Parts: sequence; structure tokens; C-alpha cells
Amino acid sequence: MTATSATVVLVTPSPSRTSGATPVVMRMSSLFLRTLREDPADAELPGHKLLVRAGYVRRAAPGVYTWLPLGLRVLRKVEGIVREEMEAIGAQELSFPALLPKEPYEATNRWTEYGPNLFRLVDRKGADMLLGPTHEEMFTLTVKDMYTSYKDLPLTLFQIQTKYRDEARPRAGVLRGREFIMKDSYSFDVDASGLQKAYDAHRAAYVKIFDRLGFEYVVVQADSGAMGGSASEEFLAVNDGGEDTFVRDEAGYAANVEAVEIPPAAAVPVTAGPAHVEDTPGTPTIETLVAALNADHARADGHEWTAADTLKNVLVMLVHPADEEHPEGRREPLAIGVPGDREVDLARLEVTVAPAAVEAFAEADFAAHPALAKGYIGPGVLGEEKATGIRYLLDPSVAEGSAWVTGADEHGRHVIDLVHGRDFTADGTVQAVEIREGDLGPNGTPLTLARGIEMGHIFQLGTKYAEALGLKVLDENGSLVTVHMGSYGVGVTRAVGVIAEDNHDELGLVWPREVAPFDVHVVAAGKGEDLFVAAGQLAADLEAQGLDVLYDDRAGKVSPGVKFKDAELVGVPTILVVGKGLADGVVELKDRRSGERRDVPVGEVVAAVVAEVRG
Amino acid sequence: MTATSATVVLVTPSPSRTSGATPVVMRMSSLFLRTLREDPADAELPGHKLLVRAGYVRRAAPGVYTWLPLGLRVLRKVEGIVREEMEAIGAQELSFPALLPKEPYEATNRWTEYGPNLFRLVDRKGADMLLGPTHEEMFTLTVKDMYTSYKDLPLTLFQIQTKYRDEARPRAGVLRGREFIMKDSYSFDVDASGLQKAYDAHRAAYVKIFDRLGFEYVVVQADSGAMGGSASEEFLAVNDGGEDTFVRDEAGYAANVEAVEIPPAAAVPVTAGPAHVEDTPGTPTIETLVAALNADHARADGHEWTAADTLKNVLVMLVHPADEEHPEGRREPLAIGVPGDREVDLARLEVTVAPAAVEAFAEADFAAHPALAKGYIGPGVLGEEKATGIRYLLDPSVAEGSAWVTGADEHGRHVIDLVHGRDFTADGTVQAVEIREGDLGPNGTPLTLARGIEMGHIFQLGTKYAEALGLKVLDENGSLVTVHMGSYGVGVTRAVGVIAEDNHDELGLVWPREVAPFDVHVVAAGKGEDLFVAAGQLAADLEAQGLDVLYDDRAGKVSPGVKFKDAELVGVPTILVVGKGLADGVVELKDRRSGERRDVPVGEVVAAVVAEVRG
Repeated sequence: MTATSATVVLVTPSPSRTSGATPVVMRMSSLFLRTLREDPADAELPGHKLLVRAGYVRRAAPGVYTWLPLGLRVLRKVEGIVREEMEAIGAQELSFPALLPKEPYEATNRWTEYGPNLFRLVDRKGADMLLGPTHEEMFTLTVKDMYTSYKDLPLTLFQIQTKYRDEARPRAGVLRGREFIMKDSYSFDVDASGLQKAYDAHRAAYVKIFDRLGFEYVVVQADSGAMGGSASEEFLAVNDGGEDTFVRDEAGYAANVEAVEIPPAAAVPVTAGPAHVEDTPGTPTIETLVAALNADHARADGHEWTAADTLKNVLVMLVHPADEEHPEGRREPLAIGVPGDREVDLARLEVTVAPAAVEAFAEADFAAHPALAKGYIGPGVLGEEKATGIRYLLDPSVAEGSAWVTGADEHGRHVIDLVHGRDFTADGTVQAVEIREGDLGPNGTPLTLARGIEMGHIFQLGTKYAEALGLKVLDENGSLVTVHMGSYGVGVTRAVGVIAEDNHDELGLVWPREVAPFDVHVVAAGKGEDLFVAAGQLAADLEAQGLDVLYDDRAGKVSPGVKFKDAELVGVPTILVVGKGLADGVVELKDRRSGERRDVPVGEVVAAVVAEVRG
Repeated sequence: MTATSATVVLVTPSPSRTSGATPVVMRMSSLFLRTLREDPADAELPGHKLLVRAGYVRRAAPGVYTWLPLGLRVLRKVEGIVREEMEAIGAQELSFPALLPKEPYEATNRWTEYGPNLFRLVDRKGADMLLGPTHEEMFTLTVKDMYTSYKDLPLTLFQIQTKYRDEARPRAGVLRGREFIMKDSYSFDVDASGLQKAYDAHRAAYVKIFDRLGFEYVVVQADSGAMGGSASEEFLAVNDGGEDTFVRDEAGYAANVEAVEIPPAAAVPVTAGPAHVEDTPGTPTIETLVAALNADHARADGHEWTAADTLKNVLVMLVHPADEEHPEGRREPLAIGVPGDREVDLARLEVTVAPAAVEAFAEADFAAHPALAKGYIGPGVLGEEKATGIRYLLDPSVAEGSAWVTGADEHGRHVIDLVHGRDFTADGTVQAVEIREGDLGPNGTPLTLARGIEMGHIFQLGTKYAEALGLKVLDENGSLVTVHMGSYGVGVTRAVGVIAEDNHDELGLVWPREVAPFDVHVVAAGKGEDLFVAAGQLAADLEAQGLDVLYDDRAGKVSPGVKFKDAELVGVPTILVVGKGLADGVVELKDRRSGERRDVPVGEVVAAVVAEVRG
């Protein structure tokens, strides 16, 4: 091992090394393509519709797609960009199978945890197998078998490989498929600071990848979910059709809505009078309570009571996983106080209380705590020191000094002007409520909400997988230490879908240059042998300059109008029309994105196209 | 459509376009590699052992392998060769999923016919799915959806894609895996002559592919097996460890042993006296019969009787598939006459009687034909015109004019000197007996037997799949005609295994240049900064010449001896040793295959290596 080894790049011969591929002329007359004028029935998003209409992909089964020749060219270019940037940070490519044995996934409990998302099958000998959703286990075991010393580290491995997840709702074509290609990589370091370096290197590589792919994205703090581990960030494509919600502020903060941490609201001066309990019969809900308050307990200042004046105390049951002390796991009641105008966001709550899961508080649970007056529960009985002994956490929006109407722990009674910090306290805070547009974020500035599509995810796994599977190496002192791992994914097939969603107009696709299936689309728009000879010659001349050329050489009944429509639909960035102007020695050069067109003398057009392509 | 469209080549940006890849220097100090000195316990064949020991592949599950960085480089180069030659015949690349719906495979009956070789699974909604073993159905349906006219044809499509078969005995590493990569292509033509052209083009492309891959192979006539269809040929790697047996003669004839057709033996002059029935009690087997003949019926000329003098009549039950006349299928008894010293080869028989299957003739079947005297069955009751009415076919080795001892259709009696053509005839001939070394083949010259590994298979499917799935196009006259299809496969991962079996010595692998993971292996064999600087500079200079360089830069405890052993094991064709000679201005250039080594002045070595690599 030399000290400089980590900077070496392994370049596997690459499908999509854009600089290395042999240029080509593809003729439309023989290309396996049939463009469609109608949208496919099962498509919702515009990019998906266009990928199908323009002959890039076809559905083979729900959530399972075939890549037609045009689509495969784009896919290979995306793979090539990802591969280049991974190799640039010293990651080495290998390739694991998709068909995997059960045992490693049992060791990490993911065989069970993945639930119905995992494709399971039984082989002819009765062995349980699975189709890999990600490969943490296999990479960990392989490194464990091959490496033994800190001198072998750091190490980063990656693959660009087909993965399987039995999604409940496959949607939007290649955006959320059940068979899809991911780049997944894994870093192995002897300690946490090494992991941090590998994580930072991946983050920088991902920024380069997504900058090159040509769609708007944000990097957000994320929940690490089923992967376990600690720090993680997501790269989200900003897209109204996305399934993820994220928040951001003007200062550059961004987070998945599940992962956003709202700081405690600043304390406010106490202005309320003393707390007083009132009869509020038949008010077990916020709605009935607010109505009763306004009817029977009007405020002196004339302001109407609203739901925001009430404090709702919600009970849930935490299910903690098994540990040494509780080999069967453990169930713990939890009370959460939130403003009455807010709902509890269970996804946020689960992120905060992870690894515990959250279940509903059942009738039997209420029965086990007779001090809980259902519909009228208040801070009077909540908290580890109080009658119920149930841990009580407040959403951070409940400011110190603020006054509330909340349950008086007796049926049909509430307490008014109960002040946080003066009249009650809790055992702590918890991120509980749904985030709304305008909520103040960690920077104290308003958050905006937006939708996104998860394109990349980087995780600091820490020692979770290495511990579960026994990956240890000898450190400098000869002691065995558990390896620190990171796990990093890019949705490769999904990226093609997102690029399509972000790069189209009403006429068709508009590919960014770096991933376009061809550099230039030559259209022979007219009749006569001379025109086709000239167009064919231009196509050949462009190829000789190293460009990939799509040449619409279709003769006979295919009109220029049909060819123009197809060219707009297919979306090659530069369109070169050889038509009527040829008689005057000019051809038309059109920019697909801007729509700008100009006549160029035939003798100058090859240079003009090269200049456009090479920027 | 233009008439010339079929000659156009679609070049998908290619992983392994050897000319296009960016050159690289890979350092051994950071390469994810751990060579092994011991053979893996589960490996039998030498190439398999070496691929594991040298760190090219690793077993992930039975029949399921991981491609480590070195192996992936070789695999990509093999893929690149296959891709180039497919594109050179105008085939267009696309990519189907591996996870497929059941319905198309039910339409062709392969859902059932594949039996336990098919990986089946059920998705979360209860839908039956499969992992594709080959893709005839999906290609057929896709072309059906997109194309409608003879003008759209000819068309050839291919993919290089991961396939799954639940082999009963996965073996020899990547030679017979359960997850493997195949190139599969499919041709679509309007008529049989178009199919013949596509078939011939594939055959020529396969010759080029296998010539480039660097192992000995033969092209043999083959049985088309479960694929249906008519003509087919196999490309077999000649290998004693192979599972297929093939025959060949000196005139160039070669066939899979199952597919060899032996012509009828030339008629011989009748020399036997009149046939006569003799008592041969207790002789239901050939062995007991021969003993009895020699004991009680000695020949006048003193020659001993042997099994080859007897005619054995074997009964089987043919199971014909369902057709219009017999919607339930049909069972037909069949009698086969073969020389008593030969066994019936059921595989050859099944090829001849396909699509019928062959089952054993059960006791109940004998009971249904009381004229059959079990152990003493002769031509007297066999044949469509005879007492049993059972069709009677002779192996072609039973020459006209030859005399036989055979059953007299009475228990304990045989007939001697029964002459074919004089005393009995049959309803025809059938390819039935096991082939032996020295048998005369179709050219009338002796056959030799050898073992092989199936590397490629080309089939004329005809209209089988197109009919089952309704793929028709309009012909020139506006009539709907069924498309003629061909199906063509190359085992891509298997090819890496076969190359390893054919290219190694006792020290390790010896890669052919075109598929080697690197062009040259530079070994820094010694100590001192100067030596490493010089070696690193040479590696960089070689890279600058466009070569892929593996550079053993390991310092510290790794001795030159270990480095030399690893270099022999890894098998890069050219090894450049920077060692003691450096003080005298020379380095050592070694040819891995021949073992030849020579000292070359440092200033000349880059040119010398380039000359070796470029040949």
C-alpha cells in the first residue's frame, strides 16, 4: 500500500464514455422506431408520455420497461456520466448478481424489514432467494472475505446494476419501476473520519453528476430510513409531480419534510391571567371545543377562539425494537402536545423516534390508564412524574410563556389560560406536526414547500452493517476494529425519466446535449435524388467530425411535415433540414430548444453544427 | 423505407469498443484484489479455479457469480466484441427486462415446457411472473405492436442482457450459471428466403466473434430442442470438460451427437442360408442369448456368436403433442430394431421423433399387445401390416442383405439367419443407436467423438413463435402473412469461462490480447524510490500511448517473488519488469504465453511494448 493509492482511478472500459464512443450515422428508414401521435393510456406525467410516444421506452409489465434503441442510447450516456464521476473519486467498478441468497439479508433483518417490497422466490431445491433491492450485505461480506487490515482501506466500490423492488404503486414509467438500474456504491473506512471523507467525496461527485444530467435539483437533509445509520442527504429533482415533499428557505437550507427539524419557538412574555377550569360539556374534539368556547366562554378582548388557541394532546404507542435488556422488544406509551390547528405528521414523528415504530393508541391502552379522560386529556396527568407516568413531549411550536386551552383531565371540562412553563412543563420536545408553508425553519426564516423526486441518496451507515455481518479489520495497533461504511445510490433509469420531465415542450422532448441520443438530426425534407445525395453526404461529413447523426432518409410517402413532427418529438438538440433551400445552396439549422432557425450555406454547415455541439 | 436500409449499422455507445475506451493505469496497491494460492474447494475445471484464485470472479450463491474489477474488464471486452459484430450485420440493440409477465410464455406453452428450469415468482398483487430464460416472446410481441408491413422488414434486434435458468447442476463457475449474460438476437423476415439470409449473416458474424475470442470451436449441426423451429447449428468450444458430445470427420462434417444423421449402411450381398427357428430357452437378454447360441447353435464356420450378430427390438411409447385431430395429444407404440451390441440413445431418438416425446413401454402396454413375447420379440409381429400393427423402424446400421439372430415371437425361441430385405422389412429407419468412435458418418468416413461447451446457437424458428403470438404483416399484395423468425444466442459470461479454460498454464491465466483486462503489466521489482519513479513513469508513458496498464506499485513487504507469481496468475499478456537491470539502463520484457524474456533499454521499451500489443 502506498499512501497515494486512494487517488488512483480505475477506469473500466465504459459504454458511455462520451468522448470514446465511435461516431455513427443512424438512418430513420431502418431504425426500430414507431412514433405515436397519441398519448399512452397509462401515462400521467408529460415526460413519461413523450418517452413512450417518441419510442424511447415501452412497458413490458407494470413497472417494468423495455429500453428501445433510442432510449438505450440515452441510458448509456447517463450511465457513462455516473461512471466517470465515480471513477474520478477512486471508486472501483464490479458487478454483483441480482439473484441473491436469503441468509445475508436475514443477518441484517432486511429479509423481514423490506416486507412486500422485496421480490422473494424459491429455487428448485427449495432454497429461499431474493432479487436484490440494494447490496449492502453482499458488498460487506465480500470485503470481509478479501480484506483484513487497515492498510487495505480506504476502499470504495460501485456497480451500475439492475435492482428489483415490488413497489405498491409503480408509476410514471421509468420514474418508479419495479426493475430499474441503480448506481450503488459503498465506502469502507477504518474510522468515522475516514467515512466522513468518503461521504464528502461522494457528495461532491453527486453534485457533478446531477449538474451534468440537466435537471433542477436540491440537496436535502434526509431520514436514513430502512438503511439505518446516521447522517444522510438526498438529491431531489425539483418536480411538481414528485412523491417527496421538501422544505427550503432563502438562506439555502433544504430538507426532506420528514427530516426537517424545527427549533423551539422563542419564549414569549406571559400575558395570560391565571389558569381556570371551565365546564365544556360535549367537546371531545377541537371543533366542538372551539364552538363551545366562543359560545360560552367569550374572551374579554373580543377575539374569537380558534383551533390555534388549543393544545391537543395525542397519545401513541412506541414499539421499540428488541435489545439486550428487552429481547422481545418494548411498547411505550407516549403523549404529544401539539397546537389544535395542526395534525401530527406520523412520518416526521417516526423519524424522530427511530428506531422505534409508532402505532395507534388502542382502546385497551386507554383502559390501562384510567387517569386518561379521553377527549379531555391535559398536561395535568401527562409526564413521567405525573399520574399516568406517560412520557409527555411538546411540539417545538408550543412556545414558553404561551397560553392554551387544553383538557382538564375530567370528562366535559377544559382548562383555559394554561401557560407553558408557568402552569405546566413537559419531558421534552418532539418533531411532531405537519410542516406548513411559511413555518419558521432552523434559520428562523420562513420555509417554502416543494415536491421532488429522489435521484440520489448518500448515507453514513456507520458500523451497522459491519457489525451485523462481522466486518472487522486490524488497526495500526493490531486490534480488531469494526469497519465504518457508507452507502450511496443514484437512480440511473430514473434519471432518464427525470431528464425527460424537465426537458420537453408541447412538441416533444428537448434533450440536454450531454445525454442526447444523437448530436444532430439531419432531415431530408423534399424529393429528388440530388436532395437525398446531399443530405446523406452531410450526414457522413458530420459523422467524420466525430458526431452521432440521426439521418431521416425516409423516402416515398413520408412527408416533410411528418419528418419535422418526428424530429421535434424525438428531441435531438440540433436539427439540420435539407430542403427547398438546397437549390440556392443553403440548408436550415434549427435549435430544438429555442426554436431558432437560420439558413446556412451548405459549405459552412458542418463547421456550424460542430460549433453548436461542442459549445 | 429505402431499399438499402438493411445495411445500416446502429452503433449504441459501447462499453467495450476496444478502440474507444480511454486508456488507464491501475495500481495494484489499490486494486480490489486478493489473489489466492489455494484452489477453491468447489472448483473442478482449471480455468474456473484460476478465475477465482486470480480474483476475477467470486461465488455469491450456487451458480451465481460476482464479477470483481478484473473480471468485469474482461467481460466488458467480450461484450464489446459481440456488440461490434452484431452491429456489423445491421442488428439494433435494445434491452428488455428480466422480470417478465407470465402470459406471453403461456401463449407459447414455454411457461410449462421449461419445467423447473424456469425461475417463477409471484408479485405482491398475486400476479405470476418469471425471470426470462430467453426472450422470443417479448421480441415477437414488441415487433407485432410496432410493425405492420413487409416494408418494415427485414429487421434484426439484439440485446446483451442478464438471463436466469434454475439449472439442476450449476457447474464450473461461470460456465453454467443460474444468472448469466447472453447476447440474444432475433431476426424478422417476410419469408423463408429472408430468414435464410438473416441466418447466414448471423452464422458469419458468429464465426468472426468466436475467431476473435481466442478458443478452439466447431460449428455443429444441432437439435433445435425446446426452441422449436427447423434448422439450427451450435458453436461448441472444444473442451474435454464440456457437457456436450459432438462428432466430426476428416472432411469437415461436425454435428452434435444428438443431431448426427447416420446414412443407411450400404446393402451387402446375402450370404446366409435360409432362416431357421431354434429353441433358446431362458434367453430374454442379449447376453444370455449369445451364450446359448455359442453353447447350443455353434456356427459351421467356427466363428463365435457375438452381440453384434443379434437384432434387438426395443419398444417405446411416443407421446405426440396435441393437435387439431387429437386435442388431448396421442400415444403411439413404436418398435425399434438395433444391433444387439448397441444401446438406444434416447436423446438422438427424441430429436428424430420430435415434437413427440419418448416414454418407456410399460407393463400395461405389453399386456395390451399379447402378440409381443417379451424378451423374444422379432420382426414377425412388428410393423404396421403385422400382427401387432406397431410401427417398426430400423436403425440405419441394419444393412440390407445382413443376417441376424432375433426373436421368433415365442417365449424361448429365436430365429437365426433372418435376412433384412429377404426375410423381413420394416416401416422405415430411425436414428436410434448411440454413436461410437469410428462409426461411419454422412460422408462415409469414420467419425471421431469429442466433448464441447455450447457457446452459440443459431436457430431458424420459422413461424412457430409468430404464429403462437399472431405476428403478421401485410405483404406486397396486401395479404397478411406470418413473419419468419430466427433466434440467435451467444453465452457472454460463459465465454469468459471458456477463454480461461483454453488459455492458461500451470502458473495461471494467459489472456488472449483482445480480451485481456490490461495490455501490459508493469512490475516494480525491487526497492528504492528511483525504481518506483522509473516504473511509474513507464506506466504513464505506456498509458500515453493508449495502452491499459496494470502497475504493481506495491511497496513494503510485498517481495518481487510475490509480484511475479501474481503477474503469472493474473495473466496479462505482456509483463514489463523494472528491477535490478535498471541500474544498467535495461528492463525486462516478458511474454506471458511463451515465457520468453529479453532485456530492453529503458528508452526503447515503450515502443517495444506498443509493437507487441499492436502486433
